[in-house]
Amino acid sequence: MSDINKVVLAYSGGLDTSVIVRWLQDSYNCEVVTFTADIGQGEEVEPARAKAQALGVKEIYIDDLREEFVRDFVFPMFRANTVYEGEYLLGTSIARPLIAKRLIEIANETGADTISHGATGKGNDQVRFELGAYALKPGIKVIAPWREWHLNSRESLMAYCEQHSIPVDFSTSKKKSPYSMDANLLHISYEGGILEDPWAEAEEDMWRWSVSPEAAPDQATYIELDYERGDIVAIDGQPMSPATVLEYLNKVGGANGIGRDDLVENRYVGMKSRGCYETPGGTIMLKAHRAIESLTLDREVAHLKDELMPRYAKIIYNGYWWSPERQMLQTAIDQSQACVNGRVRLKLYKGNVIVVGRQSDDSLFDEGIATFENDAGAYDQADAEGFIKLNALRMRIAANKGRKLL
Amino acid sequence: MSDINKVVLAYSGGLDTSVIVRWLQDSYNCEVVTFTADIGQGEEVEPARAKAQALGVKEIYIDDLREEFVRDFVFPMFRANTVYEGEYLLGTSIARPLIAKRLIEIANETGADTISHGATGKGNDQVRFELGAYALKPGIKVIAPWREWHLNSRESLMAYCEQHSIPVDFSTSKKKSPYSMDANLLHISYEGGILEDPWAEAEEDMWRWSVSPEAAPDQATYIELDYERGDIVAIDGQPMSPATVLEYLNKVGGANGIGRDDLVENRYVGMKSRGCYETPGGTIMLKAHRAIESLTLDREVAHLKDELMPRYAKIIYNGYWWSPERQMLQTAIDQSQACVNGRVRLKLYKGNVIVVGRQSDDSLFDEGIATFENDAGAYDQADAEGFIKLNALRMRIAANKGRKLL
Amino acid sequence: MSDINKVVLAYSGGLDTSVIVRWLQDSYNCEVVTFTADIGQGEEVEPARAKAQALGVKEIYIDDLREEFVRDFVFPMFRANTVYEGEYLLGTSIARPLIAKRLIEIANETGADTISHGATGKGNDQVRFELGAYALKPGIKVIAPWREWHLNSRESLMAYCEQHSIPVDFSTSKKKSPYSMDANLLHISYEGGILEDPWAEAEEDMWRWSVSPEAAPDQATYIELDYERGDIVAIDGQPMSPATVLEYLNKVGGANGIGRDDLVENRYVGMKSRGCYETPGGTIMLKAHRAIESLTLDREVAHLKDELMPRYAKIIYNGYWWSPERQMLQTAIDQSQACVNGRVRLKLYKGNVIVVGRQSDDSLFDEGIATFENDAGAYDQADAEGFIKLNALRMRIAANKGRKLL
Amino acid sequence: MSDINKVVLAYSGGLDTSVIVRWLQDSYNCEVVTFTADIGQGEEVEPARAKAQALGVKEIYIDDLREEFVRDFVFPMFRANTVYEGEYLLGTSIARPLIAKRLIEIANETGADTISHGATGKGNDQVRFELGAYALKPGIKVIAPWREWHLNSRESLMAYCEQHSIPVDFSTSKKKSPYSMDANLLHISYEGGILEDPWAEAEEDMWRWSVSPEAAPDQATYIELDYERGDIVAIDGQPMSPATVLEYLNKVGGANGIGRDDLVENRYVGMKSRGCYETPGGTIMLKAHRAIESLTLDREVAHLKDELMPRYAKIIYNGYWWSPERQMLQTAIDQSQACVNGRVRLKLYKGNVIVVGRQSDDSLFDEGIATFENDAGAYDQADAEGFIKLNALRMRIAANKGRKLL
Repeated sequence: MSDINKVVLAYSGGLDTSVIVRWLQDSYNCEVVTFTADIGQGEEVEPARAKAQALGVKEIYIDDLREEFVRDFVFPMFRANTVYEGEYLLGTSIARPLIAKRLIEIANETGADTISHGATGKGNDQVRFELGAYALKPGIKVIAPWREWHLNSRESLMAYCEQHSIPVDFSTSKKKSPYSMDANLLHISYEGGILEDPWAEAEEDMWRWSVSPEAAPDQATYIELDYERGDIVAIDGQPMSPATVLEYLNKVGGANGIGRDDLVENRYVGMKSRGCYETPGGTIMLKAHRAIESLTLDREVAHLKDELMPRYAKIIYNGYWWSPERQMLQTAIDQSQACVNGRVRLKLYKGNVIVVGRQSDDSLFDEGIATFENDAGAYDQADAEGFIKLNALRMRIAANKGRKLL
Repeated sequence: MSDINKVVLAYSGGLDTSVIVRWLQDSYNCEVVTFTADIGQGEEVEPARAKAQALGVKEIYIDDLREEFVRDFVFPMFRANTVYEGEYLLGTSIARPLIAKRLIEIANETGADTISHGATGKGNDQVRFELGAYALKPGIKVIAPWREWHLNSRESLMAYCEQHSIPVDFSTSKKKSPYSMDANLLHISYEGGILEDPWAEAEEDMWRWSVSPEAAPDQATYIELDYERGDIVAIDGQPMSPATVLEYLNKVGGANGIGRDDLVENRYVGMKSRGCYETPGGTIMLKAHRAIESLTLDREVAHLKDELMPRYAKIIYNGYWWSPERQMLQTAIDQSQACVNGRVRLKLYKGNVIVVGRQSDDSLFDEGIATFENDAGAYDQADAEGFIKLNALRMRIAANKGRKLL
Repeated sequence: MSDINKVVLAYSGGLDTSVIVRWLQDSYNCEVVTFTADIGQGEEVEPARAKAQALGVKEIYIDDLREEFVRDFVFPMFRANTVYEGEYLLGTSIARPLIAKRLIEIANETGADTISHGATGKGNDQVRFELGAYALKPGIKVIAPWREWHLNSRESLMAYCEQHSIPVDFSTSKKKSPYSMDANLLHISYEGGILEDPWAEAEEDMWRWSVSPEAAPDQATYIELDYERGDIVAIDGQPMSPATVLEYLNKVGGANGIGRDDLVENRYVGMKSRGCYETPGGTIMLKAHRAIESLTLDREVAHLKDELMPRYAKIIYNGYWWSPERQMLQTAIDQSQACVNGRVRLKLYKGNVIVVGRQSDDSLFDEGIATFENDAGAYDQADAEGFIKLNALRMRIAANKGRKLL
Repeated sequence: MSDINKVVLAYSGGLDTSVIVRWLQDSYNCEVVTFTADIGQGEEVEPARAKAQALGVKEIYIDDLREEFVRDFVFPMFRANTVYEGEYLLGTSIARPLIAKRLIEIANETGADTISHGATGKGNDQVRFELGAYALKPGIKVIAPWREWHLNSRESLMAYCEQHSIPVDFSTSKKKSPYSMDANLLHISYEGGILEDPWAEAEEDMWRWSVSPEAAPDQATYIELDYERGDIVAIDGQPMSPATVLEYLNKVGGANGIGRDDLVENRYVGMKSRGCYETPGGTIMLKAHRAIESLTLDREVAHLKDELMPRYAKIIYNGYWWSPERQMLQTAIDQSQACVNGRVRLKLYKGNVIVVGRQSDDSLFDEGIATFENDAGAYDQADAEGFIKLNALRMRIAANKGRKLL
């Protein structure tokens, strides 16, 4: 194990990754660089500095990546109306490639030859971290402690801390959640515990970012979102940066009981798992983006996007953000958004996101043609006969030749 | 116009199609056969008999098609989780091929050479009726009065009635809705009027099948749906026929403010139009079907279905139910449902359909493998390394050769 | 018919379009502008000038569009390895959008309000011309004489000429081919005549651009094609313009009996038709482009392209070159070609195009990894076990749960 | 290594798998069952019996699987016009799932707990064998010697033989080919040697199943193939079993220089590799099947098949024959073939497969409509105008609203 020199670790400051710091130092006799990012998980990142220092770490990176996260990852993904398996808004999946990218950048800056992370060997996140790392720096080495060590329970981790005098005081920390959680500006997720029984209803006190629909206000909230090239640039007329947009929508969405999801998903590593997610802002963005597209996108472009979306979602879910196929699809998706400009008006009420209006200078909606009233000859109804007859021709020929459909 | 002998008309008993009866008799000097179907539109169909008789119609068909509609059209469509353009549950689209089929059957029974319908020349329904008719009976003739005549306003229709002594008393009928509406067991739709401005919010008193989320009960309703081969066969343990299932879900859904949708869609004839829909039962079925599939469907089958769905939805929307490509896709979709059996538990609350549990004897969810706890060796985490490395190989080679992803 | 002012006609100088000039002048009392393009059909275009003048045409456009045709239409299409229905290289389809574009440009220049063409009402070409025209100039009017007039045989056309003293001497023209033909730099096509029986073998003397494989040289010809960003830029080391590339390949291909195809295709208007095609250069380009991509394209990008190709081909075949969906796909296709650089070596022999070598500075082929010999640890065979096990996991779980595949 | 009890080995009787027998016996102290199949590789399988006996094997399976191979694997695959990456006819890929199935059947019969094969850790075949085995018997154990042992050269294998007195006389065997080869009734493949340089032309004496086009007869051969439900059931009017069909086509194809392919492909394990293939019968079958489909398949069904094909090919290439997604696709493909009946006439000449005629009682080709001559009103050309206008409507609206396509 002597060929490891310096390791950049995705470090949260929590128990698990603190143990990893020490375990890496001991097992590989290597230097550890910690990297802690604020991607909107809602916890202070600065305390990670002291913890890392106490573990003897000399190179400590603490970055605020919130704007980059939303601008370069979340927003591009939402341009595609991306949903995995009909339900999951990819809140965890979309954050991993950013972490992978920063790990590699820091490895390049610090001359590290290895990266490490705290993801387990059963999940998707290991795949996402490592595919990204390999794609961006093919010679990088990866250490995934959870696939190597035998500290497979909280008890053994605590014992390891004691044994190695890890000077981090977890004893006073708040009661450990029974769930495995992940959070960033797009969502918070819950797995494990009673959720491992897909028949068991999630407990109300599990949810952290949103009130229940029941507890939400009895009065609806209306908001207006302004779009430019498929991205939200202002809310209620107020220009906002990408991260501010998402923070705002999380707040107003969470307050109105919006964005909870409870699902069984198919992991890339081959198993089904049950997860609960809160994605208040994302839930609003998905609905609103479809609404502005409904007005501004050509029909065939919209249908093409719909057919490509599941594949695009799968690419992201499986960890291939940093891949040529994702880039090829992104090029097409971004091109389609040139005229996705305008305003969407939404009513938020007790878990519901209701589109109540959409308008755009780039609207392709033509009242003059669509109207039930007199259209002054804009549309010649007689055209429909030829349209139908030629579209029916192949089926008429087939029926004439004796083919049966019933 | 002498080559028309006998016409089967899709007859609602309302003003428009009553005028059509007389107009066909006069313009084509032909016999008219009326066909009125109960597909769950919520209006009595029997009164159509007297109206038709009064118009001199001798062959009058009045059918209750509700079970056939749900069993052979709605249920097969929901096996595919079908949604058009991300929003529309195809409530109108899916009823048309059944009407087309009956029109042709009746034409065959009565020796009619022509069918007729009351759909306009701007919409999708004319296409759906006529494609179906041509596909099932290629030599059939079609008369679409709205594409031919000049009675293009309510006033001119009323004048025609008076002029031709159409003995139907519309004067006492309730105030005409400002909307163009269509209803069947799956949904009711609204178009026209103020909806022609996509920025205008629909008025509360437009909606007929559901209470608003605000007006829905403060107490949630829980229901359990039992699936067999992808179809609901029982609710809360009570076996039910297809139409009964949908009626029940409409009632409980509508009572809980579920199923309203307001959208701009792309018509097959080339224009965008704005529509509002109430699909209470369908909204519940879509969510629940995805939930039972999440437990019982193989991942790759589920993904394949997701990628095929937009195309399948488009086929139905555009009126190609009676086509070989729909049948080819249906064969695959139906095959995929062999193990989609089990139970889904839902919480219905003020517009929300919340999945709170799913279980199945055919579940592919393996707690023993998915668990965060000790899995007793069911899954070897070390396998993940090789999995990731080989999946990364093509990208590592590319990066080694100098390809850039950033 | 008085609302037509000036018509731009796609004019070949032949009998049919000469009759159309006069027929337009007479029927619509309008001015006619002729447009004749050299797109490599192999016939002089300059003689069209005198013929048009003799018909009283004042504005005569004669353009050499060969380079634009290959550079902006043929080459972009070949980047996608485009084939319609597994066989047809879209030789006719790809020329039509260029003609449509020029017709509209000339209409804009000359103040014409209408375009016209000589395509029949049964074929795809009318659709391609008119969709392009409408997409580029939505208010344009279109006259399609073959859909309007009653001159539906050669005899009636000849009679019309005599009657209207059309001063074009066709009497001395060479014997009329029994086939309906179309030619441009990409191909020549044959329809009609004995080809209307799909069981009848095409007669050897029908083919014009290629010798039969039997008559081709007994000695193979080797050529090397250089690619940049997916396009051929040099042959045998000789830099060439796009049109020169295609001319060269047509010559060498035709001389070696390459590029004949005999097929039954599905027209957009709903019928099947039988056509024979000679596409010598295109046949070579398709094979060679796949070869250079096989070396330089990422696997998943290549597969994505393969899955999108049939849809892209259909878009072009159906006449939607000038559409937002074609442009969206083109953006993705073009992006994929950034590294499709290098050289392909081909052996041409009696109808065969045989790839015998490919090389590239952007090659992703890694001999060091692919070798059957010692790879010095570049690839760890042990990784394959984990790769296989995790890929098998979902199927093992299913089998454990009793699912059957046999 | 004591938990292995009995191993079923895919045994060719050659050097490598003979060494594996002994190595398994020694390394795992287990019983070895050999399984040798005739899948048309063109070598006697019976000699494997004596060799296995000499190695102390007690349970020896020697099966003639040729009919099953073609009937249940090759033919179903060709119904989809399956080609991987535009070139490869999947000759190796399609044989592996049959071997996997038999290995598992024999394991069940003999009570073996393990299977083994002679595929390397770099290739696709290990994946195909093992995915199939795991899918059919999830608890099966797999030993892949090439991933475990250190006998990584011919020399070390020979040394092992000597050392372990393997009583197989390879010394008299013919000179070892420089290529890694695989053969079955569908194809023979070559990899390695000078082929590892993708610029190097394959040497003429490498090819074994076909003469070169140059060496093929100067006289063309005509054959007629009869199809039922997409499969060939007779040649030149002679009914034949599936394997006989393929044997016949291999012979006549090989004799006419047909079926050689030289390509670079993307392996599932992540690398590119160069291979040469001879697939004489398959090359004929692909061309002929498309021809009979061109006459008998509905357009939209044909296009749907074309769009699904690359995915279906990838599924087979990657080893997922025994998967629910392949079965779902197969169901759809098979359904589409119900009317793919009729006769195709082919001309075979020096590497060329030329379709010269096709006919079918289920033809959808309608001469009466397609004709350039008078169609007696079967098709109303005026219908085309409405068809085009409505298809253009969305683009006209867009252009009117200022959208640009140029």
